[in-house]
Amino acid sequence: MRDFSADHRWLSINTATVRMSRGVEAPLTDIIEDCARRQIRAISPWRAQVAACGLETISRLVKAHGLELSGYCRGGMFPAADAQGLADAREDNRRAVDEACELGAACLVLVVGSLPGALEGKAVHKDMALARNQVRDGIAQLLEYAKKARMPLAIEPLHPMYAADRACINTLEQALDVCEELDPAPSDAHRASQQAALGVAVDVYHVWWDPKLRAQVQRAGKRRLLAFHVCDWLTPTVDLLNDRGMMGDGVIDIPRIRGWVEAQGFAGYCEAEIFSAGNWWQRERAEVLDTCIQRHRSAV
Amino acid sequence: MRDFSADHRWLSINTATVRMSRGVEAPLTDIIEDCARRQIRAISPWRAQVAACGLETISRLVKAHGLELSGYCRGGMFPAADAQGLADAREDNRRAVDEACELGAACLVLVVGSLPGALEGKAVHKDMALARNQVRDGIAQLLEYAKKARMPLAIEPLHPMYAADRACINTLEQALDVCEELDPAPSDAHRASQQAALGVAVDVYHVWWDPKLRAQVQRAGKRRLLAFHVCDWLTPTVDLLNDRGMMGDGVIDIPRIRGWVEAQGFAGYCEAEIFSAGNWWQRERAEVLDTCIQRHRSAV
Repeated sequence: MRDFSADHRWLSINTATVRMSRGVEAPLTDIIEDCARRQIRAISPWRAQVAACGLETISRLVKAHGLELSGYCRGGMFPAADAQGLADAREDNRRAVDEACELGAACLVLVVGSLPGALEGKAVHKDMALARNQVRDGIAQLLEYAKKARMPLAIEPLHPMYAADRACINTLEQALDVCEELDPAPSDAHRASQQAALGVAVDVYHVWWDPKLRAQVQRAGKRRLLAFHVCDWLTPTVDLLNDRGMMGDGVIDIPRIRGWVEAQGFAGYCEAEIFSAGNWWQRERAEVLDTCIQRHRSAV
Repeated sequence: MRDFSADHRWLSINTATVRMSRGVEAPLTDIIEDCARRQIRAISPWRAQVAACGLETISRLVKAHGLELSGYCRGGMFPAADAQGLADAREDNRRAVDEACELGAACLVLVVGSLPGALEGKAVHKDMALARNQVRDGIAQLLEYAKKARMPLAIEPLHPMYAADRACINTLEQALDVCEELDPAPSDAHRASQQAALGVAVDVYHVWWDPKLRAQVQRAGKRRLLAFHVCDWLTPTVDLLNDRGMMGDGVIDIPRIRGWVEAQGFAGYCEAEIFSAGNWWQRERAEVLDTCIQRHRSAV
């Protein structure tokens, strides 16, 4: 297991973590400059943040600083109430792949979606099996496109508390079932050792509770472990979406989980992704980034 | 699958649902009278509510009305920070078994506990494997006692969002793994058809999201399906603990899940268990009970 205590070379900042500074939405350009100034070598930006500054601007800035993208957030949201909705999602996901390629991202992270309308509080149906079928079909179609573009797709299983509205893939086991169905491991020994075209993003916040986590991390193996995200689970958690904790402030045994992931050969960035409306988004960006660096060294 | 549309003979009221009337804590005696008045045939009371009125008083009242107890809430909370804490939990759980016997409950529901101190926001450690071992050992000890008392124990897997503080058993699969380890199915065909001494309480709120739910319900079979609880998952859910929905107001396909449970031969009560600080606890108890009856017929 890598020693993180001496530096932060393997820290990546998911830009949602510093989406706001003192409660005000911050431009991605400023976020990137502040990361580069701290010798942070990688980020994982969100599409809306990129779009707000312009893809070309961000692409130039990322390259100027030699920044890597540990991932691009995010594709997915496949289910829809009708054929037009499904087609729109397909088109939008292809654009996400194109953008991820332009930015040189390591993978496109997929938050797969669930019951149509549920995010707006008005689910049009309750059929999780249907949503899951639409997700599988959506990933299958996107995978063809992404393979040609050589952009790996990383399914991110979300915590079961998001099953209704954000993602109907809720365990690592379930995500890997989809990976194996749509992108079977090649029998050829050489290709079988390469990174998979379809893998997973393991975010400790979503999976830490799972009694099968270790076994499923082993099942994923280096090939399918495309991204590793960290934050912490607070007790109490006062908001289902925006009350994630800074690494070390909660109950997740992050080093233990990182140990499992690295035992498979994962050697990429650890991406700090903290949605925190009541705390970190209210602070100065500099403080948040400095804290991420410090906690990366002491608590990850 | 039973037809619930014509009457509410299979409705049980978990008394947490009407714990408050117009925001004021209600005595269990009043709750029981109001249930009996509506020909509700079963309840599932909480220990604190029973204790507040006195066990003998409640026992007499339950018998006077011929009420059944679909379960007794609850034993569990096995993990502790030290030997004294573990011993205290063991003693308290034996008292819970005794009370359940006195009240003639169908089973004692187990909310197993998790990281010591987490409920108070101060987890003393982050070792889920340790907590899970303490839970297994705690159930094993209690099972010996409960078997002599002929009181079935029902492990209730709680939603993963409660993994830190309330229960480290978070899927039906995990609960059944514990059941099979501690109380293997007898090889004798006659005894193998009887109700198990250790089984599960399936609450749709906790398990509805699980892609393996149907398969695990089948695995449980009639022997281990000791209780079935209903409410609904609201979108958005604004509080992790006390924002459950009335059956029909959320996204859970309750009849589908009930169909899976009844396909195994389950023919017991459907227990309405709705923690709802912002809504139902603010209303008049009569309205809540009448709504439970109506939704039991239309949405369960």
